[in-house]
Amino acid sequence: MIESVLPEIDGGRFPITRTPGELVTVSADIFSDGHDVIDAALQYRSEGDADWQYEPMQLVTNDRWEAQFRPGSVGVYFYTLRGWVDGFKTWARDLGKKVDAGQDVSLELKTGVKLLAAAAERASSADLEMLNTLSARLERIAGTDAAAAVASSQDEDLILLMSRYRDRAGDTVYEKELVVRVDRARARFSTWYEMFPRSCTTSSERPGTLRDCAEYVEYVADMGFDVLYLPPIHPIGKTERKGKNNSTTPTASDPGSPWAIGSKDGGHKAINPELGTLADLRALRAKAELHGIELALDMAFQCSPDHPYVKEHREWFRSRADGSVQYAENPPKRYQDIYPLDFETANYAALAEELKSVIVFWISQGIKIFRVDNPHTKPFAFWEWLIRETQREYPEVLFLAEAFTRPKVMYRLAKLGFTQSYTYFAWKNTKAELTEYFTEITEPPVSDFFRPNLWPNTPDILNEYLQKGGRPAFVARLVLAATLGANYGIYGPAFELMESVPVRESSEEYLDSEKYQVRVWNRNVPKSLKGLIRRVNSIRRDHVALQHYYGLKFHPTDNPQLIAYSKTSEDRGDKLLVVVNLDPVNRQMGWVDVALKEFRLAAGESYEMNDLLTDRKYIWQGNRNYVELNPAVLPAHIFRVEPLR
Amino acid sequence: MIESVLPEIDGGRFPITRTPGELVTVSADIFSDGHDVIDAALQYRSEGDADWQYEPMQLVTNDRWEAQFRPGSVGVYFYTLRGWVDGFKTWARDLGKKVDAGQDVSLELKTGVKLLAAAAERASSADLEMLNTLSARLERIAGTDAAAAVASSQDEDLILLMSRYRDRAGDTVYEKELVVRVDRARARFSTWYEMFPRSCTTSSERPGTLRDCAEYVEYVADMGFDVLYLPPIHPIGKTERKGKNNSTTPTASDPGSPWAIGSKDGGHKAINPELGTLADLRALRAKAELHGIELALDMAFQCSPDHPYVKEHREWFRSRADGSVQYAENPPKRYQDIYPLDFETANYAALAEELKSVIVFWISQGIKIFRVDNPHTKPFAFWEWLIRETQREYPEVLFLAEAFTRPKVMYRLAKLGFTQSYTYFAWKNTKAELTEYFTEITEPPVSDFFRPNLWPNTPDILNEYLQKGGRPAFVARLVLAATLGANYGIYGPAFELMESVPVRESSEEYLDSEKYQVRVWNRNVPKSLKGLIRRVNSIRRDHVALQHYYGLKFHPTDNPQLIAYSKTSEDRGDKLLVVVNLDPVNRQMGWVDVALKEFRLAAGESYEMNDLLTDRKYIWQGNRNYVELNPAVLPAHIFRVEPLR
Repeated sequence: MIESVLPEIDGGRFPITRTPGELVTVSADIFSDGHDVIDAALQYRSEGDADWQYEPMQLVTNDRWEAQFRPGSVGVYFYTLRGWVDGFKTWARDLGKKVDAGQDVSLELKTGVKLLAAAAERASSADLEMLNTLSARLERIAGTDAAAAVASSQDEDLILLMSRYRDRAGDTVYEKELVVRVDRARARFSTWYEMFPRSCTTSSERPGTLRDCAEYVEYVADMGFDVLYLPPIHPIGKTERKGKNNSTTPTASDPGSPWAIGSKDGGHKAINPELGTLADLRALRAKAELHGIELALDMAFQCSPDHPYVKEHREWFRSRADGSVQYAENPPKRYQDIYPLDFETANYAALAEELKSVIVFWISQGIKIFRVDNPHTKPFAFWEWLIRETQREYPEVLFLAEAFTRPKVMYRLAKLGFTQSYTYFAWKNTKAELTEYFTEITEPPVSDFFRPNLWPNTPDILNEYLQKGGRPAFVARLVLAATLGANYGIYGPAFELMESVPVRESSEEYLDSEKYQVRVWNRNVPKSLKGLIRRVNSIRRDHVALQHYYGLKFHPTDNPQLIAYSKTSEDRGDKLLVVVNLDPVNRQMGWVDVALKEFRLAAGESYEMNDLLTDRKYIWQGNRNYVELNPAVLPAHIFRVEPLR
Repeated sequence: MIESVLPEIDGGRFPITRTPGELVTVSADIFSDGHDVIDAALQYRSEGDADWQYEPMQLVTNDRWEAQFRPGSVGVYFYTLRGWVDGFKTWARDLGKKVDAGQDVSLELKTGVKLLAAAAERASSADLEMLNTLSARLERIAGTDAAAAVASSQDEDLILLMSRYRDRAGDTVYEKELVVRVDRARARFSTWYEMFPRSCTTSSERPGTLRDCAEYVEYVADMGFDVLYLPPIHPIGKTERKGKNNSTTPTASDPGSPWAIGSKDGGHKAINPELGTLADLRALRAKAELHGIELALDMAFQCSPDHPYVKEHREWFRSRADGSVQYAENPPKRYQDIYPLDFETANYAALAEELKSVIVFWISQGIKIFRVDNPHTKPFAFWEWLIRETQREYPEVLFLAEAFTRPKVMYRLAKLGFTQSYTYFAWKNTKAELTEYFTEITEPPVSDFFRPNLWPNTPDILNEYLQKGGRPAFVARLVLAATLGANYGIYGPAFELMESVPVRESSEEYLDSEKYQVRVWNRNVPKSLKGLIRRVNSIRRDHVALQHYYGLKFHPTDNPQLIAYSKTSEDRGDKLLVVVNLDPVNRQMGWVDVALKEFRLAAGESYEMNDLLTDRKYIWQGNRNYVELNPAVLPAHIFRVEPLR
């Protein structure tokens, strides 16, 4: 019997996710009736390999067995389990017990010789001689020296051969082949910077273009980001265009929201002429790549009333009772500048193919990362199909789900194929909230399919903590985002310039949001956080412990404003302890109760704490250590833990 | 999407178990993309019904939905879930919001009228008129009175009709039909007494017969038992017969072990002539039934060397290297009086059919309960087939698994069909052990498929606690067995006469075990626990809280020797608190921290505690109450909790 296999998402309906070289630990309850010795193996293969590879499983406890493998390359891997009754080991075990009890085992030894002969019939020619030699030896001594026969039966080479040439017809193979989706490393570890190209300018009279944007690549690279994410770069509709601060009465010069996609200049496969050309995009991409940065585009599958689809494919849109096109709404809110696509249209197949062709078009322009807008308002089955079909041809392509919705829906989108997912991080500000949420999303089963991407701010989210907390709040949220998860991003330059004024009290929208107007930013003010961001991102690059989203462990503190947690590398060679003062106003002090075993430290042991943010070093001892953090100076430590041995 | 359905054992591979009238609470995560209103129903049916019955599901929290049903009759039931987007409710909700915001909804009302017309096309003639009336009303007021239209759209009758006549083609039905195995009530609540018929005598020279056994039915009935379980009653082999205390050198008069089945007088379908005839068995059964007692027989699928199968079906036994029949062994122990059947024989089908015919034979003699000896040493697939095939024709037949083996194996046997299971109860003697074990086996998922049967002793198990603890130990174990589970049993008269001498130090075998010899018991000694047993069994009969194995809750005490737990009926009408002193030597006292919400009591409330063992009453108040138990008097309370309101 092979049951309770882990990991297995929803009974095997969905794959687990890994990147090349990441460990997959597979465990299961494996047992049989009776008292025979059993054995088991994990078998795995990549989609392209016909042959399975085998890893022997080890019994852990209470019939729980375990083995591990590391998928080596991007693509799809399969794994399953195999168990069997080991007749030879059973025989050898019982033989030993009988000899120990002084019983006559001459018949048993005859049985053993028969077992070897049967295995020899199944053996390869390479192993046959060895098996025959061992068999002859057993037969020779069987009648004369029982103790030697027992020793001979426990020969490791023999046990291995007998297992290899067992009658596999009796093996039990687990009924499911489980799937690993292996994405490239950036799926696991990435550092995002979101920027509006039209704000890459020094004058709002002269909106920035993709060419201007390229001027800012060094700025972004210097801070240590490796993904540059651009909001939609397509032509923007004129009809029902929104003005500054989401006004319904725009002026002629208002550029409109980039998410109102489509005009006479084209739709989802076109570039807004005000931003430039496909050639400009390719140039930007090339320059970014020189600096180790990938471009990510925004895919918002919705249309402005001026989108070519509205005329060419009226059947892809729903109608109101008067025959007009149904605009987007979330009653009583109306978004008359946006027409949602109707995924229940009778022409669904053509619509889906068209949307896939949009993705493929941008892939042909060299784009390999897509941030998907509001995927939860389109059918799950559509995304599962789109991502599967895209990755079948382009396994290197990554999708980030922007689904700020209910937890089960977010998890479902991750299960069905989204590489990374936005999270509730922006609204988790207290120690209790952070601890509960990050415990849930960094442990199995969630960590086996859901890769969090943490954003302290986005063009839609300026939360109260940032509005009111000033510089300490921005620093604390930066450190939390960069160290609680392995994928994180900021929306800049609003973040590093600590833009914090909402459009109105109790709103999370920015005043003078870039969504509706061109903004001119002075990136070179002394207050900018860019130096600190550079430092934090450099720490992330240097420490593998920060490059995966699991291995997170919270350590108690006696002050609710002080949160402490560690990240360690798989081999525990890299050990970090992060402490953050969540109070943006007051100096906070307290005792951290260090979970020493996370760091492989002994009870009373001394160790050096090297603060990677400041390069200051402290000697700590044992589990109880004092921390004091002044938000006016720096509200966080990122300690490297170094045993003094 | 319908996922994470509970209960669902091993992905639906195995049924859950219930008895008629027991509640099945089904829950699942149910959600869709987008923002539409969804709804869901639980559907269930008995195997014989073609039509599903429906129960509306309720949203609990975080996309978790729940509904309940009660299977009404013995047999097989199916259940699954159905969810759908409720277009009408979505429309009505959005309409309300728009009207509240003062928006023009004339187009929306036209859409509503269309929705009603579409439903009318699907409506039965009985409902059509109502639907048409409501539709006409909506159409009439649509143009004039938006507020009235909103009120009309929220008419409960209309919502119900619109849900009933929705387009079901859009429903999502969960992909699995899950199974409930509904057994008769005795599967859930039974009180067993095990007795060797041959010891129903007043002289070892004259072993008891089935007729003698009938004389003791009143004795067993008087104590309140409802199952009388007899060890194997078949002819006993002569070859390699064991003597007193498992001696390998028996005397001519030694009767042999009842588990060494088969002689020239027959095998598994025969009765040992020394015990009587089939007619005697039927007479015993009839008399037992008059007293509300069912007979349970022991099914030990193994043979003595003299069993007719050995000659007639040599192919059902394994051979040693010299061609002799392989006897049972657990190296270095040898059981030369027992030949195991070889379930890997090429003639497996014939063997399995023969063993099934054994069961059917005893069913034809009126036996409906089988205690199965060592099922874990035979293949799982055999039991699954045997029990399924038997219950298909005889759904009233119950099987108790005597598998004292590893937990996963015990659970597997329960999953594949065994009605009840022996447990580790005999070896769980401390408060920590009892609390951990009974928490595990009385909560889902285990409680959904595993029905524990608790035995303080068996002919194989006289544990150290009973050997050394004297009368207080026997009383404590009796109360624990009778109240921690709903199925329990004792092996008597050894239990009520407190037989406690092992065959040797550190053995759990009885000295002069009835397994190997006739014992003469004086059942009428004053020290007998029969009066207490009668009392305990009477409490069990009177209190439904003790008639199911779930609803168990441990309450903290500040003394490790005092264990406290409650059992409550489903409606919380019947509320019991049991407190046991586990120390058989010393008086123990302490404070019970009563979990008041188990009893629906308020924080400072007073309540009466009526000790059903002694009829003494106490007034308790709030959660903290003092208990003192003297093992020399009575080491347990079984309190009925009675609010004083």
